[in-house]
Amino acid sequence: MAETMRAIVKTAPGRGVELIEVPKPDPGPGEALVRVVVASICGTDHHIYHWNSWAERRIGPRIPQIIGHEFCGIVEGVGSGVTRISEGDYVSAETHIVCHSCTPCRRNQHHVCINTKILGVDVDGAFTDYIVVPAENLWINPPDLPSAVAAAQEPLGNAVHTATAEPLAGKRVLVTGVGPIGAFSIGVARALGAAAVYASEPNPYRLSLAAAMGADHTINPTEVSLRETIMELTGEGVDAVLEMSGSPLAIRDAISCVIPGGHVAQLGLLSEEVSLDLNELIFKGIRYYGVAGRRMWETWETMSELLSAGALDITPVLTHTMDLESFEEGIRLMDEGACGKVVLTVS
Amino acid sequence: MAETMRAIVKTAPGRGVELIEVPKPDPGPGEALVRVVVASICGTDHHIYHWNSWAERRIGPRIPQIIGHEFCGIVEGVGSGVTRISEGDYVSAETHIVCHSCTPCRRNQHHVCINTKILGVDVDGAFTDYIVVPAENLWINPPDLPSAVAAAQEPLGNAVHTATAEPLAGKRVLVTGVGPIGAFSIGVARALGAAAVYASEPNPYRLSLAAAMGADHTINPTEVSLRETIMELTGEGVDAVLEMSGSPLAIRDAISCVIPGGHVAQLGLLSEEVSLDLNELIFKGIRYYGVAGRRMWETWETMSELLSAGALDITPVLTHTMDLESFEEGIRLMDEGACGKVVLTVS
Amino acid sequence: MAETMRAIVKTAPGRGVELIEVPKPDPGPGEALVRVVVASICGTDHHIYHWNSWAERRIGPRIPQIIGHEFCGIVEGVGSGVTRISEGDYVSAETHIVCHSCTPCRRNQHHVCINTKILGVDVDGAFTDYIVVPAENLWINPPDLPSAVAAAQEPLGNAVHTATAEPLAGKRVLVTGVGPIGAFSIGVARALGAAAVYASEPNPYRLSLAAAMGADHTINPTEVSLRETIMELTGEGVDAVLEMSGSPLAIRDAISCVIPGGHVAQLGLLSEEVSLDLNELIFKGIRYYGVAGRRMWETWETMSELLSAGALDITPVLTHTMDLESFEEGIRLMDEGACGKVVLTVS
Amino acid sequence: MAETMRAIVKTAPGRGVELIEVPKPDPGPGEALVRVVVASICGTDHHIYHWNSWAERRIGPRIPQIIGHEFCGIVEGVGSGVTRISEGDYVSAETHIVCHSCTPCRRNQHHVCINTKILGVDVDGAFTDYIVVPAENLWINPPDLPSAVAAAQEPLGNAVHTATAEPLAGKRVLVTGVGPIGAFSIGVARALGAAAVYASEPNPYRLSLAAAMGADHTINPTEVSLRETIMELTGEGVDAVLEMSGSPLAIRDAISCVIPGGHVAQLGLLSEEVSLDLNELIFKGIRYYGVAGRRMWETWETMSELLSAGALDITPVLTHTMDLESFEEGIRLMDEGACGKVVLTVS
Repeated sequence: MAETMRAIVKTAPGRGVELIEVPKPDPGPGEALVRVVVASICGTDHHIYHWNSWAERRIGPRIPQIIGHEFCGIVEGVGSGVTRISEGDYVSAETHIVCHSCTPCRRNQHHVCINTKILGVDVDGAFTDYIVVPAENLWINPPDLPSAVAAAQEPLGNAVHTATAEPLAGKRVLVTGVGPIGAFSIGVARALGAAAVYASEPNPYRLSLAAAMGADHTINPTEVSLRETIMELTGEGVDAVLEMSGSPLAIRDAISCVIPGGHVAQLGLLSEEVSLDLNELIFKGIRYYGVAGRRMWETWETMSELLSAGALDITPVLTHTMDLESFEEGIRLMDEGACGKVVLTVS
Repeated sequence: MAETMRAIVKTAPGRGVELIEVPKPDPGPGEALVRVVVASICGTDHHIYHWNSWAERRIGPRIPQIIGHEFCGIVEGVGSGVTRISEGDYVSAETHIVCHSCTPCRRNQHHVCINTKILGVDVDGAFTDYIVVPAENLWINPPDLPSAVAAAQEPLGNAVHTATAEPLAGKRVLVTGVGPIGAFSIGVARALGAAAVYASEPNPYRLSLAAAMGADHTINPTEVSLRETIMELTGEGVDAVLEMSGSPLAIRDAISCVIPGGHVAQLGLLSEEVSLDLNELIFKGIRYYGVAGRRMWETWETMSELLSAGALDITPVLTHTMDLESFEEGIRLMDEGACGKVVLTVS
Repeated sequence: MAETMRAIVKTAPGRGVELIEVPKPDPGPGEALVRVVVASICGTDHHIYHWNSWAERRIGPRIPQIIGHEFCGIVEGVGSGVTRISEGDYVSAETHIVCHSCTPCRRNQHHVCINTKILGVDVDGAFTDYIVVPAENLWINPPDLPSAVAAAQEPLGNAVHTATAEPLAGKRVLVTGVGPIGAFSIGVARALGAAAVYASEPNPYRLSLAAAMGADHTINPTEVSLRETIMELTGEGVDAVLEMSGSPLAIRDAISCVIPGGHVAQLGLLSEEVSLDLNELIFKGIRYYGVAGRRMWETWETMSELLSAGALDITPVLTHTMDLESFEEGIRLMDEGACGKVVLTVS
Repeated sequence: MAETMRAIVKTAPGRGVELIEVPKPDPGPGEALVRVVVASICGTDHHIYHWNSWAERRIGPRIPQIIGHEFCGIVEGVGSGVTRISEGDYVSAETHIVCHSCTPCRRNQHHVCINTKILGVDVDGAFTDYIVVPAENLWINPPDLPSAVAAAQEPLGNAVHTATAEPLAGKRVLVTGVGPIGAFSIGVARALGAAAVYASEPNPYRLSLAAAMGADHTINPTEVSLRETIMELTGEGVDAVLEMSGSPLAIRDAISCVIPGGHVAQLGLLSEEVSLDLNELIFKGIRYYGVAGRRMWETWETMSELLSAGALDITPVLTHTMDLESFEEGIRLMDEGACGKVVLTVS
């Protein structure tokens, strides 16, 4: 009889998921089988759970689907042709499976590959005991990296990618939106030598995370004017904004708070179109960067080295740890905005 | 009796200007007196003539004001402390007078100086026989540069600045909006080794300028879908858009036509806010550059060398030449969209 | 009986090669079989023929070895797992076979892969009727690209890589050494908008190639002082040197001819150590780039597009065409310095 | 009777200096008079004291000359036309007085201005009670910056300029030569997020400074092979070398220790030519940067912000403090290699 394993599966359209037994997969050529040690919950998983229109459109046709994509684990086997990865390796995974053939890939812009497939979205994911992934997607961790940190490297990589759009050394940085990735980016900006880090966020719990990650000033834009506060603090504006919220208001403030010649790096996705005064962007000569995924593998290397060197500590953001069965409790914490990153212990 | 000279002056609020006699100025310390040889008409002059809300707000308090800022001429005298410039030099002028003290200036981003004063807008301009400008603003032209070309270097510099936001060699480039600066930028992209240049513009006269400047394909977006046409021509989109129109529709098309990993450089000013799908910018990892003015002096140097080397010929865009007295005829041509750049012979 | 094919093979240590019949190879997984249409002779082939110390050390252990690596051809079959390339494709080849696992590869610096294997040096080469290469190494050419040009893209890529170390638009460029790659680089600099191109080379035949490729000035450094000539022509030095000769004297001149703030890109390999005044490099703040291979695949794309757009024409450098059997005549022409690139028609 | 002040003056060719009374200067147009609070001794001052061939050639024609250029102080008066600087400002000085007219200056590469004059070398210097400098050369310090740190910003700026040749975040960095600037650069690399910093230096006292500044490993290249040690520690080499020694052996090691695709930034001046294997530079695709002075004013801003943010602490390098009269004791400490930076309290 085929071996089975636990998995959190979107089994039907609509709200919710099920924790069920499914067959344990085998690695094919170029693939690796990883025993999941720790997984963490992303906003994407939250959307799939609550079944918003994006989830319906993207996941609907793929039901039943194992969800989850942030994880680390131990390699238990590899398919044919795999040499860089071996059994026993302690790994995390880049979740974008790319084609290597499209124009962006041939330009080493794999993070915007036209044919990207995403773990836990387009193929089965990581909220399970075992996952099969392309071996090339695995990043080998140093043995002493805590497993919760190792699992959270995927979203941390988003923060590092956003924070490295331009050098931040000696720069005044505003982070708008302090979800887990926003909170990570505060620590990253610090590690890169930022002169000052300001964090804007309406949720007081998250503002406390911002402070814990090293923000010099935390600003609640529902209580004070973000722009006026920044101008009071800096005199002339910030040099860089890391826009992590996807809030139209925050984006308008971001452009408004940047000094002429500065830049904005935008990671936060929006749920609607945003109306902007582009003339301000033009007159100020602002560089506006859309940021997706992680550079393969420059972002992973920078992140890994910052963690190993002790220049970056993300543990204040890893606020809750629970087992796989408690997944829905994690979703509830996210509903309430009462958590940083929720970490699931799998094995 | 004080010497006088002719000048086109905004003498009163509302539509129109007057050609009157005004006192000839003297250069102060650090300044130079230039006899204007050729001047050319900018869209800004057109706005001041027609007295739109921007002109009312910006020029209103400064009436009476000599207008015009694109010109070349011969230095007839310099004030104290001027050494780089001498009598007899054949010069054009950077029109941004900058402070050298603000943070952008101290970062060598003079083109976005916080205290910029613009010739013909904030101080007296160039539609006159003699103009006094800070000597540091003068660019010395090679003696064989045609005077109409020399005068048009100021707007040509906008095109060069926009086209050099990133290297265009081997890239597919879309220019949206073929006013004079858009038309210039087609030639610049060609000179920089662009693989292909597509030009989008509703005005057929201007589309013919695009072709004359070397566009491979000209597209009338009121007749066909710009996005569909670009996708048919390129398969996957263009690598770069030089957005010269300030049209909300063109901006939305620009983002839509760019391949993942590409960039947009935006020079065209808008008359209203624009509603954008920023997620497309994010998912594609697009770099969006607001472009203002000209880099001092990198843009001027690149431009000057491209012209001298014969890699760039802008004369097809210099469609009409007339004398200073015929200024309003130039305005009428611009009203009708029946011209490229209108050049005024002054002396 | 196994099918055979012609091949130019290094069959024994010492000077010379043999044209013999060898078994026709089959493509394995991930590989493609290419019928060679045109191949061209590189300085490396010349070294292997004459058996210098490098060749003895590198090729010695691999005898018998088919040599040659610059070629184009038609794909006649592919091994398992190949999807991007199909039978009938008209292709050229990147000659560096890289590992994708070392640190430089993971940083998208494949051109300096630590485990590089080179066609015709570390594995069998292209002076033959059929060659098997990794499918990922193939670049698909547009159908109208002349086959001699298609074959010469490998060395042309070296020129493009060197010329794109920094933007050359509007810059004064000195090319030292006008072998085929040096000659190519003159055309590339022109296509990228260089203000002026100066070429230095002692061989009069090659100086004429420099002129044919668009050099503004050709300089014979055995007749005049290169440095003095450059200073006379430019007043203050060139902005960039593309060093293609590997001559210690040229390298010292290169550093000496560059304006403060300029750069040198060094492709020419040396046969000995060179003694340099590094203080000049420091005081002038010069950026000195060692250049190897071609960026995968940015360099190939730029090159391909410059050729397709007609911005670059390398045919003046392709001075001699002969059949495969005449290979040694090509070597003799190279001995005499009486050729540009020698092209071999294979099928 | 004219007011006088103390000054350390090179009064005659040969070894030594004199502390004498000289007239107190007055600021001319565009200049500022600064009361020196703290000055520090540079290797250049050491060379002038000992009168090496460089000093003889450069200073000889200017005797008598007040020496010294690293300092901070309080502005006591300004000449006409000075607005950015006022009496009472707490300032340090960029020591390169630049022309703003040469090509490098016009390209915003003022640090390699062709007409640079250096404080304490080409014009009177800072080992005195009062100094007159161009007001544009003054950097306004935050009031809480310790004066010894403020004075040492000039050489610290060399370290920052060298360390910012490319981003160091997540990179393994080797510093060769741990004089004061080398020691500073260790702290700067750390502040910029370096993964690991290795320091090489034969002087044990200086190696202890390296450790105090945060080097992970200190290496004495007279005791072990630098290259072998680096390869043991890193497996494949370092990503960047900051070459601060000017030692030919260190430079050869630097190139040898860098991973393919890495870079070397060279600040250390040499006393002789160096013989190099440039092929290693080429095959590895290394970028080699000559570094001079400080970028105006990007380097100053980055430095100032790193200090203010507490990301960088250079006080371990400021090992000795004494009064102006004890200058020769400072020189003796430097002779013995028994100091970091020697700081002179002036007022």
